[in-house]
Amino acid sequence: MYDNKIELVAAAYRKLQDRACYLIEEAEGSALFSKDPWKKEIGEGNTRVMKGGDKIAKAAINYSMVTGNYSESMAKAAGKSPGNFSATGISSIIHPVNPYVPIIHMNVRYFEMENGTKWFGGGIDLTPHYIDIEESRNFHKALKTVCNRFDINLYPLFKKEADNYFFLPHRQETRGIGGIFFDHKEPDNSADFEKYFEFTKALITIYPELYVSIMENKHSIPYGEKEILWQNYRRSRYVEFNLLYDRGTKFGLVSGGNTESILVSMPPVAAWDYQYKPAPGSDEEKTLKLLKKDIDWISLMS
Amino acid sequence: MYDNKIELVAAAYRKLQDRACYLIEEAEGSALFSKDPWKKEIGEGNTRVMKGGDKIAKAAINYSMVTGNYSESMAKAAGKSPGNFSATGISSIIHPVNPYVPIIHMNVRYFEMENGTKWFGGGIDLTPHYIDIEESRNFHKALKTVCNRFDINLYPLFKKEADNYFFLPHRQETRGIGGIFFDHKEPDNSADFEKYFEFTKALITIYPELYVSIMENKHSIPYGEKEILWQNYRRSRYVEFNLLYDRGTKFGLVSGGNTESILVSMPPVAAWDYQYKPAPGSDEEKTLKLLKKDIDWISLMS
Repeated sequence: MYDNKIELVAAAYRKLQDRACYLIEEAEGSALFSKDPWKKEIGEGNTRVMKGGDKIAKAAINYSMVTGNYSESMAKAAGKSPGNFSATGISSIIHPVNPYVPIIHMNVRYFEMENGTKWFGGGIDLTPHYIDIEESRNFHKALKTVCNRFDINLYPLFKKEADNYFFLPHRQETRGIGGIFFDHKEPDNSADFEKYFEFTKALITIYPELYVSIMENKHSIPYGEKEILWQNYRRSRYVEFNLLYDRGTKFGLVSGGNTESILVSMPPVAAWDYQYKPAPGSDEEKTLKLLKKDIDWISLMS
Repeated sequence: MYDNKIELVAAAYRKLQDRACYLIEEAEGSALFSKDPWKKEIGEGNTRVMKGGDKIAKAAINYSMVTGNYSESMAKAAGKSPGNFSATGISSIIHPVNPYVPIIHMNVRYFEMENGTKWFGGGIDLTPHYIDIEESRNFHKALKTVCNRFDINLYPLFKKEADNYFFLPHRQETRGIGGIFFDHKEPDNSADFEKYFEFTKALITIYPELYVSIMENKHSIPYGEKEILWQNYRRSRYVEFNLLYDRGTKFGLVSGGNTESILVSMPPVAAWDYQYKPAPGSDEEKTLKLLKKDIDWISLMS
């Protein structure tokens, strides 16, 4: 088919990691990303973390390149053959200070199996503590525009996959307003490889731009104790999703990854209250009612 | 063998639930347990929750009796045959206000399969935010005393099972100082059934007594911001254990249980900090160093 590309992909991702950190730092204005390069038996990475900023409570933009073995059970779960693999990826999450600014997550990953199988996966999704329909529309529009540069079939497909993936069955809630998600996209040939490679690069590129614009719009909206408490309740749902369902988290923890790098996705603080229900008609209740699959955000009227 | 006993067991557990709530309320002095009886297709329960007390931040003592179907995969994981089951149990957790008071957890459960198989499971374990060796010794001594009333082989066996079960592999930490844990104890005959039934009743009986005495010793120790932050970091490990590994939580969520009743085990607040390390020689560091399996707490010198 074509040669192994893992080094090429890893190098491109690493470069875009630095660009994303730079753009987020510029917008944040006060805190900086640490650099924490690590090497373990399974591979290497650079965990870049920002804490305690004026606008950003906690953010991570992580790069890693690891090798490992797909056990029978892991391979079966993924619909793949067992064997050795190499994988590289960028994984990021941003928890803002202001409850009116959403949480964002982006991840792209590339796998190469020793038998020659290769695939890409990834996604971007937004988790507003308070859903703003216009912001949601713009976010989905921007993702659709990026997708359409590569293939007009991608957005509807990947939007649906995001709705299904970023879902908490035990709460019957989506994690947020979704976005795009895809996994196990195996390129058929070199041209197809290039398409997905460029697509994942485009996602890492657009990610900080999208978030900076959202953050700039919202970070100075006044808020109080009530909004912070609600933010912490929503953050607890984020914790539940990541620990109960997130494939990357599970894969990382069972494959002997760097625990602190994997769980840097956890919010700085989270709160749980038994049977908490927002007041009828409140903004909190409006948000809860919009945490549903299959909402066409681009057409939805405010 | 002998008739089904689920109603008998459920009635005894229900009674002890009320006793435990009463004793904890007395010691707390201000907040009371709510009563929240529920009925769903799968069964019924009574979720009793206390919030915002002077000494207790959040506590739950839950009773349930449910029926369901052990699917092929669930049965295989448990080493059982597939089929319909009835199950009843008490599950409890207490999150104190004062960081010097430990978190406690107790659970007992009884299963009956349609093919006649029956088993008991359960345990009690203590999770101090700050480990106190004398308190740990007394706690384990009390558990050993209860176990010995039934069988002198139980404590060493169940203590080891607790060390193995209440363990976070990704952190290489135990959840706390352990306690006792057992599962799938199938009585061989009626006398054996009585033994385990009485043993689980003894656990629900001793549980509030043990905790009240620990709480009384510690609840008025002064603490500040530093201790609260540390408490919230330790609480986040509790969240990780329950969502990543706890069998009861997983079983409850996949079998269509009452989500709010299951996740009432979550602490009121939890905090995560990337690569937080306590100061060398601090009490926080001493606690971390004691979060290990196979510590003989009864013989350990302070």
